Amino acid sequence: MSEYKALKEEAFEANREIPRHNLAIYTWGNVSAFDGGKGVFAIKPSGVAYEALTPESMVVVGLDGAVVEGALKPSSDMETHRVLYAAFPGIGGITHTHAAFSTAWAQARRSVPVLGTTHADYAAGEIPCTAFMDEAAVKRDYERETGNLIVAAFAERGLDYHDVPMVLVAGHGPFTWGKSAAESVYHAVTLEEICKIALYTAALNPLSLEALPAHIMRKHWERKHGKGAYYGQR
Amino acid sequence: MSEYKALKEEAFEANREIPRHNLAIYTWGNVSAFDGGKGVFAIKPSGVAYEALTPESMVVVGLDGAVVEGALKPSSDMETHRVLYAAFPGIGGITHTHAAFSTAWAQARRSVPVLGTTHADYAAGEIPCTAFMDEAAVKRDYERETGNLIVAAFAERGLDYHDVPMVLVAGHGPFTWGKSAAESVYHAVTLEEICKIALYTAALNPLSLEALPAHIMRKHWERKHGKGAYYGQR
Amino acid sequence: MSEYKALKEEAFEANREIPRHNLAIYTWGNVSAFDGGKGVFAIKPSGVAYEALTPESMVVVGLDGAVVEGALKPSSDMETHRVLYAAFPGIGGITHTHAAFSTAWAQARRSVPVLGTTHADYAAGEIPCTAFMDEAAVKRDYERETGNLIVAAFAERGLDYHDVPMVLVAGHGPFTWGKSAAESVYHAVTLEEICKIALYTAALNPLSLEALPAHIMRKHWERKHGKGAYYGQR
Amino acid sequence: MSEYKALKEEAFEANREIPRHNLAIYTWGNVSAFDGGKGVFAIKPSGVAYEALTPESMVVVGLDGAVVEGALKPSSDMETHRVLYAAFPGIGGITHTHAAFSTAWAQARRSVPVLGTTHADYAAGEIPCTAFMDEAAVKRDYERETGNLIVAAFAERGLDYHDVPMVLVAGHGPFTWGKSAAESVYHAVTLEEICKIALYTAALNPLSLEALPAHIMRKHWERKHGKGAYYGQR
Repeated sequence: MSEYKALKEEAFEANREIPRHNLAIYTWGNVSAFDGGKGVFAIKPSGVAYEALTPESMVVVGLDGAVVEGALKPSSDMETHRVLYAAFPGIGGITHTHAAFSTAWAQARRSVPVLGTTHADYAAGEIPCTAFMDEAAVKRDYERETGNLIVAAFAERGLDYHDVPMVLVAGHGPFTWGKSAAESVYHAVTLEEICKIALYTAALNPLSLEALPAHIMRKHWERKHGKGAYYGQR
Repeated sequence: MSEYKALKEEAFEANREIPRHNLAIYTWGNVSAFDGGKGVFAIKPSGVAYEALTPESMVVVGLDGAVVEGALKPSSDMETHRVLYAAFPGIGGITHTHAAFSTAWAQARRSVPVLGTTHADYAAGEIPCTAFMDEAAVKRDYERETGNLIVAAFAERGLDYHDVPMVLVAGHGPFTWGKSAAESVYHAVTLEEICKIALYTAALNPLSLEALPAHIMRKHWERKHGKGAYYGQR
Repeated sequence: MSEYKALKEEAFEANREIPRHNLAIYTWGNVSAFDGGKGVFAIKPSGVAYEALTPESMVVVGLDGAVVEGALKPSSDMETHRVLYAAFPGIGGITHTHAAFSTAWAQARRSVPVLGTTHADYAAGEIPCTAFMDEAAVKRDYERETGNLIVAAFAERGLDYHDVPMVLVAGHGPFTWGKSAAESVYHAVTLEEICKIALYTAALNPLSLEALPAHIMRKHWERKHGKGAYYGQR
Repeated sequence: MSEYKALKEEAFEANREIPRHNLAIYTWGNVSAFDGGKGVFAIKPSGVAYEALTPESMVVVGLDGAVVEGALKPSSDMETHRVLYAAFPGIGGITHTHAAFSTAWAQARRSVPVLGTTHADYAAGEIPCTAFMDEAAVKRDYERETGNLIVAAFAERGLDYHDVPMVLVAGHGPFTWGKSAAESVYHAVTLEEICKIALYTAALNPLSLEALPAHIMRKHWERKHGKGAYYGQR
């Protein structure tokens, strides 16, 4: 039996959440699950429909990008996942989708301002949108450079990837992460909802896309994620 | 057997309506049912998914905010419910959601004008949006002050909470109430529909967001809720 | 056995289409079926949820507005249906809903211009929006005057109700009709789709809400409804 | 047994995908499958609801427009399909729908600019919108001229129909094609998604509807369709 059985099951289950939450059609999008101890992640195979996935079809890849186990080719976005696992220690899962509202903000190249508590519950500040990738980087290694673009967007803004577990890649779409593959999907669903409500808000009030006052924003983040967090059954 | 069995069943059933009507995903939102005779309300436990709820998991809380029965922590918004039950005599249920269209109006900080009879059938005037909470109130007791903000919004406008059983909290989202928990959910569904149609109307006619003539508005309210009401099988 | 059994079945079946096509929630909306020979129509009872309907619960009403058969009160909009059956000879069914996109155009008080062939396939010209009802008419008999408002909107424009089997009542919502109750629902579904696409079109191109050229509009109407119609299996 | 059994099955299966993906209601839209060897295509019968279709009900038509096999009349858009099969060698299927977002762009008469990689994955440039048909062409042969309008739109722009397997007919709606009937439906679903995200993008950023940089656009097209394509399990 594969020593990666549990990891592949985790990746499989998380990938199956994608169509359930209408985050992608056909083969679009991908989720991976990371095992920090072994330094490997299991990821969706490239171009396979969600209904056709099995735990066995997940592809296990090392942090050097080499396939460790699996008969199929990994997702074409595998290199982006690899860069993020290397750069963001402690995360256990990554999700990429082309969900409509998140992708619209990415195409409009606008970071999502904190317009309400729904946003503040999940991200402690605006959700950044990266710059466009330049031509040299596209030619070098497009998917790896997508990862570098994300890492740079956080570094430039002095942003902590724990505080904002989501990003928009300009002209492309969203990537989200979390403690597990399941949490990364949870954040992808949440991001889509935040982007939908933010677009409706912009439609109603285009002139005042100002952020929620900082004291309300911090309060909502703290009551879920701060030291004295009191949301849920902890 | 618990003396609150029926109340917990009522709260349970009403909470289950939330995902059925797509008013919230995951654990977002909460409904409570009030027993005026006993001075207690049953409310959703904090951070529990709707599919995992049982009648037994509902938490019974007194009007002083103390848990009377239940193994779990009540919803983090419990204090808001408590303030509303104390301030609005005669209501029997409260619903809070992050439904997309209602939340968008709350984020845009715009009261919803009476643009049509769909609105006038359920609220006898515009649906108010509160002010933002100030920093001192957030620090004092955020959830209690959310209740006070709602009560103040009605007092300032001289509004009767029977005539308009719904409100938008600025930057946050909707709260609705009714004679029972079920009716409060009914009003949450209705508010989301009103907000959706109002947003579409604003998209078509941004310059003329003028209200329905008062004589049509009153007629629709009266035929459902006035002395000579003739809608339904009464 | 009731002599109206078939008519009540027809009204029942047509009413059940309303929630199937997401045209209304709860008890909103109503459909009736007309028997021209007997001069009666069967209509949804007032305030009853769609899931609770049975063929027996339909209410049979004469052209004088008197209930001929049925234990329940007819829809509060019954008088509007009655006026339309009297004024528009040859129609066999009427549908009223609060479907979101149709209602938004009614609330924006804009007639829907013929922006494409989807519209021209079902209505041979713009879909008119009535004026607001004045206060005297509201006091006289609100529902009857709603019917009169519709009839007047067609008369003023010299419009044939066969060519445009649908209307928007300002600040209220859509009414549609057809040869049968089923066709009136079909037209309600179609109108909602036309209004949805027209709103999206307006969002993309607000400055050029000009109609489709008349020769294309006429062609689409004629190939479905003209003398030489060749659409379908006729 | 019919020598067209497999072709009719293919057309049947592809037509059934239309309502599954919410691309059309009732009888709207149609799909055909082409057999280049035999020079015939199987197409949906006119005005028949999707649920009522069977493989046997598909109509087989030759490249001269004559019905070769089938008891029913072919889709009223048959002539458009015929022109496209004749003009675009190598395609094996065509889909026409009135899907809401695609139709809105067609009604707004705007070609869809390449705003993101979701678009670039499926079309190597903007999705063209044709001109309006003139009155003489409408009178000559409306459906045939619709095909000619599409062919002209590609010729005028020097566009390769392999690079952009989709088009918008002004004031009407989308046509898509592919190597098979199934792929043409796949492109119809994809086009609707592209048009939806593009409309949301335009709502957020009306002033900067500029295209994705060409080097990113080409990269996405190449990684799926170029010589060194590496997406999927090839």
